[in-house]
Formats: sequence, structure tokens, C-alpha cells
Amino acid sequence: MYNALRNFINSKTGSEIDDSEFQFVEAAFTPRVIKKKQFLSHEGSICQYMAFIVKGAMRQYVIDDRGVEHIVRFGIENWWISDRESFSMLTPSKYNIDAFEDTELLVTTKEKITLLKDQSPLFFKMAHVLDENNFIAAQNRIEANISFTAEEKFQQLMKLYPEFVRRFPQNMLASYLGLTPETLSRIRKQMLFR
Amino acid sequence: MYNALRNFINSKTGSEIDDSEFQFVEAAFTPRVIKKKQFLSHEGSICQYMAFIVKGAMRQYVIDDRGVEHIVRFGIENWWISDRESFSMLTPSKYNIDAFEDTELLVTTKEKITLLKDQSPLFFKMAHVLDENNFIAAQNRIEANISFTAEEKFQQLMKLYPEFVRRFPQNMLASYLGLTPETLSRIRKQMLFR
Repeated sequence: MYNALRNFINSKTGSEIDDSEFQFVEAAFTPRVIKKKQFLSHEGSICQYMAFIVKGAMRQYVIDDRGVEHIVRFGIENWWISDRESFSMLTPSKYNIDAFEDTELLVTTKEKITLLKDQSPLFFKMAHVLDENNFIAAQNRIEANISFTAEEKFQQLMKLYPEFVRRFPQNMLASYLGLTPETLSRIRKQMLFR
Repeated sequence: MYNALRNFINSKTGSEIDDSEFQFVEAAFTPRVIKKKQFLSHEGSICQYMAFIVKGAMRQYVIDDRGVEHIVRFGIENWWISDRESFSMLTPSKYNIDAFEDTELLVTTKEKITLLKDQSPLFFKMAHVLDENNFIAAQNRIEANISFTAEEKFQQLMKLYPEFVRRFPQNMLASYLGLTPETLSRIRKQMLFR
């Protein structure tokens, strides 16, 4: 189980973490299984965990004043999931994080991750690479949100994250893209008949 | 001029950078003035600069296939501006970055910033704090994009960045929010008469 995280650190840093350094990583994480529809974190509570997804699929969503769910993030194998704002600032979260499939996680806490960044230079480097990648991905998603047509949004999702399109149902994909399910359904039909 | 950057580092790190450490920061940055409508970086070129805005106002935007400008980022005093993807990955930028007002910058390059992070622990810490703040701000903006009504989007902008609303014209604010100028104009009128 920890091997997935080890491979992930190696791939993001372009290095090979050795056994003695990886012991610190192992010590900072705890395995956890979350069954489908169960929660990692709830709206109104502090999100105490940062989780690496070994197997499964999760989503992070907010429920608006009209009772509508909006999915801000999906997570599948090799993705991290947490409410970064709540986790870092220790403020109540706006989000729910639940499992869409039975999910195996490696979870850590703020204290452990702070210590680990001092103990493991490669984990520290990985975190920096992820921050950079996240910044770039968020910039691209914001650009798509404000400038793309509905069809362009879906085409970009298929191109960047085809696995999301395979794993999650259409209503969730629509939510993630900020489209109504009806609009996404219409677009996909139009794309089929072109 | 460098004092603005010094104060910024102190405020983000909660520390006081001393003279000897700040000498490394000064050596890594060059003052630059960009007149209104002039460019820091062009679409199709590698964005070679990361800039700290001492005075003035800038915008980062993309022009879509239909010739429409979409503003992904504003920058005013104490903001940083660059195309992070192009700057980090050395790939051609999709964006233009230009001055909306005459602007005074402190600019640095990828090489200098890499060296500086080794030389100055407080600059390094500031960069980490900014990455975290950016992650959180991007998450909130994505949530607004996919879940808020047009009016909620504008209200959030007024709440989070009132200075943007004072400094930039309505058509640019609309672009930043992913609204048409007509929609934003209608909303603002409705808000006045409520």
C-alpha cells in the first residue's frame, strides 16, 4: 500500500527515495479505508486529514444555499485530497469529501506533515512540485471556466482527465464543469453525431 | 522601491528580514517601469519574468479563437504577476501581461529566484506561504465560477478584492468574472435599487 506513495514521490521528484528516508514517510501516514458514500471530512468541521488515494475515487463538493451540490475536485488513484484551506488554517470547512467508490487512503495530519517536511527532503520537494502543478492546473481551470464554451470545457476535461470521464457519472461531470446535466447531455449527443 | 518588497516578505513570513539576508533579495531583482498599455510578456513567447508590483496595475489575459479577451488575473500593489506555467516550464505562454496603469515593478528570472531560495530562508518561506494562499484563492475562485450566480460572483469580488472594483473598468471586471459586460451592468443596477 505504501508502495504507491513511494512510487509517487519518486515520479514527482525524479529521484529514488531510499529506505531510511522513506521510513519517515511511512511513520507519518496511516492506512484508512472509506466505503462508498462514507466521508473523509464534513462541512462545518475542520478538515483534519490530507489523504493520498491508493485505490478508489472521491469527490470534494459544496452544497449551495439552493441545496445544489457543486463538485470542486475529483480524486482517483495517485491524487491527493483535502480541504487545503481548512487543513492549513484550522477553520471550519465549506466542503464535504466523500467516497464515490470504496477507497483506500494513506492519511496524515498537519502536525505530521510539518514534521515530515523537515525529515524528508524528497517529500518536501514533492510537496513543492505539487504546489507548482496545482497552481498551473488551477490557472487553466479558471481560464476554461471564464472563457470556454460548454463544449470546449467538456473537450478539455476529456483531454486532461479522461479517467474522470470514465469513472464518474454525467451529472457529477456536469457539476465539476459548472454545467447543467441537460447541457452536458446535449453536448455529448452533438459530439457523437458530428 | 525595494522597501515595498521587504515589507511584503516581513508581512507574509511574520519575521523581520535582516540587512545581510535582504542583500540577496535586492541582488536578485531589477527595477523596471512599464508604461500603460506596454507589455511585460506576450502570447507565444516564454514568460521570462516574475514581477512584484510596487506601484500600478496590470492584467494577465488570453485572447480566444473568437478574438475575445479573457482576464485570468489582475495585479496591483503587493501582488506578483507572471505566467507561472511558462515561467516554470519554459514553454510559450498563452497569455499577454500588460500594464493598465503606469507600473513600477521589481522583476526577477527563474535562475535568480532558484538561487535566491537557497540564499534566503525568509524569501523561501514567503514563496511557500504564497503557494498556499494561491492554492486556497484558486479553489475559492473555481467554486465561485462553477456554483455562484452572476450577482454572487460580483459580490464576492467586491468583498475579497474591493480595490479591483475601484481600479479596473466594468468591462474588465466582467471579463475576469466570466460575465458579459451587459450582465454585469444589469446586476450592478439591480444592486443599486434594492
